[in-house]
Amino acid sequence: MTLILFPCYKAKKAREGSMVKKIAVFTSGGDAPGMNAAIRAVVRVGVADGYSVVGIQGGYQGLIDNDLVHLGPRSVSNILQRGGTILRTSRSEEFKTPAGREKARAILEEHNIEALIAIGGDGTFRGAVALSKIWKGKIIGVPGTIDNDLFGTDYTIGYDTAVNTALESIDKIRDTAEAHERLFLIEVMGRHAGFIALESGVAGGAEEILIPEYPCSLKDLSERIHERRKKGKTSSLIIVAEGCSEGGAYQVAEKLKRMEHGDYRIVVLGYLQRGGSPSARDRILATKLGAYAVQVVTQGISGVMVGEIAGNLVTTPLPDTWEKKKSLDKVLLAIAPALAT
Amino acid sequence: MTLILFPCYKAKKAREGSMVKKIAVFTSGGDAPGMNAAIRAVVRVGVADGYSVVGIQGGYQGLIDNDLVHLGPRSVSNILQRGGTILRTSRSEEFKTPAGREKARAILEEHNIEALIAIGGDGTFRGAVALSKIWKGKIIGVPGTIDNDLFGTDYTIGYDTAVNTALESIDKIRDTAEAHERLFLIEVMGRHAGFIALESGVAGGAEEILIPEYPCSLKDLSERIHERRKKGKTSSLIIVAEGCSEGGAYQVAEKLKRMEHGDYRIVVLGYLQRGGSPSARDRILATKLGAYAVQVVTQGISGVMVGEIAGNLVTTPLPDTWEKKKSLDKVLLAIAPALAT
Amino acid sequence: MTLILFPCYKAKKAREGSMVKKIAVFTSGGDAPGMNAAIRAVVRVGVADGYSVVGIQGGYQGLIDNDLVHLGPRSVSNILQRGGTILRTSRSEEFKTPAGREKARAILEEHNIEALIAIGGDGTFRGAVALSKIWKGKIIGVPGTIDNDLFGTDYTIGYDTAVNTALESIDKIRDTAEAHERLFLIEVMGRHAGFIALESGVAGGAEEILIPEYPCSLKDLSERIHERRKKGKTSSLIIVAEGCSEGGAYQVAEKLKRMEHGDYRIVVLGYLQRGGSPSARDRILATKLGAYAVQVVTQGISGVMVGEIAGNLVTTPLPDTWEKKKSLDKVLLAIAPALAT
Amino acid sequence: MTLILFPCYKAKKAREGSMVKKIAVFTSGGDAPGMNAAIRAVVRVGVADGYSVVGIQGGYQGLIDNDLVHLGPRSVSNILQRGGTILRTSRSEEFKTPAGREKARAILEEHNIEALIAIGGDGTFRGAVALSKIWKGKIIGVPGTIDNDLFGTDYTIGYDTAVNTALESIDKIRDTAEAHERLFLIEVMGRHAGFIALESGVAGGAEEILIPEYPCSLKDLSERIHERRKKGKTSSLIIVAEGCSEGGAYQVAEKLKRMEHGDYRIVVLGYLQRGGSPSARDRILATKLGAYAVQVVTQGISGVMVGEIAGNLVTTPLPDTWEKKKSLDKVLLAIAPALAT
Repeated sequence: MTLILFPCYKAKKAREGSMVKKIAVFTSGGDAPGMNAAIRAVVRVGVADGYSVVGIQGGYQGLIDNDLVHLGPRSVSNILQRGGTILRTSRSEEFKTPAGREKARAILEEHNIEALIAIGGDGTFRGAVALSKIWKGKIIGVPGTIDNDLFGTDYTIGYDTAVNTALESIDKIRDTAEAHERLFLIEVMGRHAGFIALESGVAGGAEEILIPEYPCSLKDLSERIHERRKKGKTSSLIIVAEGCSEGGAYQVAEKLKRMEHGDYRIVVLGYLQRGGSPSARDRILATKLGAYAVQVVTQGISGVMVGEIAGNLVTTPLPDTWEKKKSLDKVLLAIAPALAT
Repeated sequence: MTLILFPCYKAKKAREGSMVKKIAVFTSGGDAPGMNAAIRAVVRVGVADGYSVVGIQGGYQGLIDNDLVHLGPRSVSNILQRGGTILRTSRSEEFKTPAGREKARAILEEHNIEALIAIGGDGTFRGAVALSKIWKGKIIGVPGTIDNDLFGTDYTIGYDTAVNTALESIDKIRDTAEAHERLFLIEVMGRHAGFIALESGVAGGAEEILIPEYPCSLKDLSERIHERRKKGKTSSLIIVAEGCSEGGAYQVAEKLKRMEHGDYRIVVLGYLQRGGSPSARDRILATKLGAYAVQVVTQGISGVMVGEIAGNLVTTPLPDTWEKKKSLDKVLLAIAPALAT
Repeated sequence: MTLILFPCYKAKKAREGSMVKKIAVFTSGGDAPGMNAAIRAVVRVGVADGYSVVGIQGGYQGLIDNDLVHLGPRSVSNILQRGGTILRTSRSEEFKTPAGREKARAILEEHNIEALIAIGGDGTFRGAVALSKIWKGKIIGVPGTIDNDLFGTDYTIGYDTAVNTALESIDKIRDTAEAHERLFLIEVMGRHAGFIALESGVAGGAEEILIPEYPCSLKDLSERIHERRKKGKTSSLIIVAEGCSEGGAYQVAEKLKRMEHGDYRIVVLGYLQRGGSPSARDRILATKLGAYAVQVVTQGISGVMVGEIAGNLVTTPLPDTWEKKKSLDKVLLAIAPALAT
Repeated sequence: MTLILFPCYKAKKAREGSMVKKIAVFTSGGDAPGMNAAIRAVVRVGVADGYSVVGIQGGYQGLIDNDLVHLGPRSVSNILQRGGTILRTSRSEEFKTPAGREKARAILEEHNIEALIAIGGDGTFRGAVALSKIWKGKIIGVPGTIDNDLFGTDYTIGYDTAVNTALESIDKIRDTAEAHERLFLIEVMGRHAGFIALESGVAGGAEEILIPEYPCSLKDLSERIHERRKKGKTSSLIIVAEGCSEGGAYQVAEKLKRMEHGDYRIVVLGYLQRGGSPSARDRILATKLGAYAVQVVTQGISGVMVGEIAGNLVTTPLPDTWEKKKSLDKVLLAIAPALAT
């Protein structure tokens, strides 16, 4: 294969006179399928590019606890296809305190870490920004969360797999819904964002989709169900994002019951959506963003999240990733009602 | 392929002088993957064997409502791989009354149905026995339920798929459990029987399995969790059959919380376990039992459930199927603790 | 859900005075997962938008043979999740002749079809252009092919599913490759384009990827295999696009054998890549493009393919779709060698 | 969970005075899904039962090369769900020579191995019998092969997964077959036995199944295809076991072509059938047989294969496993023609 050179390979020489030598990588917050693919790319591209790479085990808490491990190209063999994260993750209360972050800084300095690659969601990036106030090294964020609610990238790592997992569940439940002519409420993840609900709902042919972004009138919904029944459609799937204005699936069900829709069933997908072997799209996105994070380190940039927008690799200042709002797909929102006849 | 003749083909001639001409088939109770494969086998083997076959849509209620449809070999094309049931199912309150059953009898006589093949679980078979008190036709049961809790067959149709579905979910949750070092409670189906819990738990490498058949001491369980933590095993999967003596996953969790296991997560698989394309084993079992049900009709037998025990096709009087108790696999029960190190 | 109005709904009124009333939709060429989702969207959005929709069964040959069927919203129930195409497809020799196309024109006029929505690949679109020379109706192409080799859309319908299917196969073969320490050659689809090979290869962690776009030196490849063996890596997966410069997997294997790589195994994925339930991404893309095709008809446009580029719905003149060349992902090409350590 | 004691736990004390202390386990021949589950059970039950367990890496060749590794309960964590074998496998030419086996004997004695648990197929067991002529230790076989062609067990480890993998492929190809109205020849594994072909064919609704056990008349088959076409069934799936009397799929296709069935397609599933995460049934069978192999060692038995027949754990002298012939399911053979209408 004749190679079109990627700037990071050219960058190798330029970097030789520079000071960055050791990169640390970690995963934090909720795990997401594809995190391992991102770790693998950071390590293999990092090593190919002349860096020494260490992994921090257990997120920010692992950093505080000095739980570091050297990662060579072979350390990340055979992990590309695995869900979860070999570096584990955590939600650290200690890191939220100045004393905790001070400990983290000390460990980073002790090990001469010059750049930190943080794979996670907005909580992870908030922590990174706090750390950057007291530590001089570079910090690069990689968007790893199934929720897709980060500004600065079209998709986050793990989102495509989570949507497909939700979709497989919806397909299965439809079998039963049609066999029994029943109303099903399926709760998917999404405390603040309706990405998973909207995409899995449209792809699964759901009759209704309730998302946090739009206030939902259960009265109107109830009327639509009644109308469909009159037309002979006796089974319905309603997708409920957990952060819907009317509450999660249990609360919505309670309210529908009062509107005389007695025979409903509830399924809460919950943690199922986090696991599983990552999809092709998630492995490729994770691989590209992991490689790009190394390149960004080489370019001397800090305080940004790497992402992919319209097929281009881009960087976004970390605070923008949670302060700015990424929109739902307007076309899907518009056509959803016509599809759910 | 040179054929070893199956008795039902020889039986064709013998039957020619007899009176049975029309068979009705239906599905009832909870749907199970493989029901469509059983319907297909009844229709295709039935037609090959000289019968006319009708399908009753919507279980016993559909029978009362005279919702019958003629089924030819092409009516059941392309359904073998589908979950749910093309004949739909229901739980009929009306059929539980003498008046409802009287209506059912009238419909059966109106259509000259001479044999009824009922695919379902113990509720379905209880209904069949009640019907047989007032109707003279033959009734054959086919075990279609994911719970596997029928005496008279090693496995019921749908069970293998349900175990594999539960197992895939357990595999996914393990990714997250290990990433976070957490305790997970996973509730699987099984109100009265621990088959799904035991097999999916052993196959999924669960640390603990709680089943209805054995009283479970949460105090002992709590101690084992603490011991494993001391040995460095920080994540645990606990499979809870919904009919466990200590309650479902939410109730068990509440009790464990009081024993200071704070950081647990709950997943209730619920209706997910009913759906999906049936496994090879379920399609084959359904195909064999559907074909055998037709043969049993030809043999003039009534009031039995067909089943497979130790590789042989057998019949069992319908009341035995729910009155007698099928045992869990003793070997699995015995070795489970050694495996969950 | 408060709706952001999609222009096609506003367009409804504007269109009322216009002449277009009946749309025909068909699938042609190789089938691709998601074609059914596109048909469903054309029908449901078409009907919501005031059109009457007919389906042509069996591609261009079905048109010639007058094999048309009316499609209402219920005709396309429960097909969203199915592989293949309910309208069937074909490769018609007759349509390649002027007489054949003349027959097609006559049928279109007989039925008062005013717009034709053609779901398929470049062969389908060439046919559409030929037809447009003698027929006055509007023709809109929808990109449905697993190969992804159409200019004018980032992805074609079916591609994401095909990559995931290839990937699952690669994951499975890796199990055996590592158990046996063997060299495997896996041939994927792609006569003229390396999209499937490149993405499934990177996502599957393949050691080598041979694609039509770049001449490949088997001598260099052989040396890299020897080098990896010296470093202890005894198993290798080589992905071969069927249109690779050195031939398909069997021919490459023959040549490697002469270079003393005796212990290799071959797997040709072939038709497996066409089937299966479409992925979330393919269902969503198909749904959006099907809906957009209807809108484009309403706008009075003809002779274009609808597509999605950088998240925007766009149209491209049909001849451009096969005359212009879509590039492979440059980042993946560049980083692939560093990943395959 | 109150435990019903499995004899191997009671056996612990009885064994304490005995001489067996160290067990070696290995996998050999073609890999099969579930081999890792069997290794895990041998190790965990072995250790629970007081043994020290070592793993031989790379089959008989690894034994000759002294490639042994100690296995504790944690060594086999998180492997239950993985395809392939962590101990790798091989086909050793050296072991087929007396000198090779002499080396193997020396290694076994050097390490004080007192029992060898061999997971594999008939080739593996033939090797075990040859070794037993010169080595005094105990040898127990565990049936691990996707072909299911071993006498002494209803199913072999890996068979259920292979059938399901073949079935998923058949389901996918049916999508395309129906879209194009085509004849497909699908070759599945089975050089000497038709188990995979028969079960995946019946479960997949194949129109024809060609197996090594019965001579097949292509002339009759050709006539049946023509007849079905007359009845309007234009697509057909023909499953061909690789060891069919008329040859594999390519040879059968060549012969059908001469009988004027021009438009056929071929798919050879090949190595795909070996890989993948094992099914629930395979994990459970592997777990039970691995545990039982340890118990059999404790009982002082040697030269047998463990198996499960009609739900009971049994042993069979190793030579019987390949000399005696296991029959195909007679019911499936008999009903297959009626199903393929």
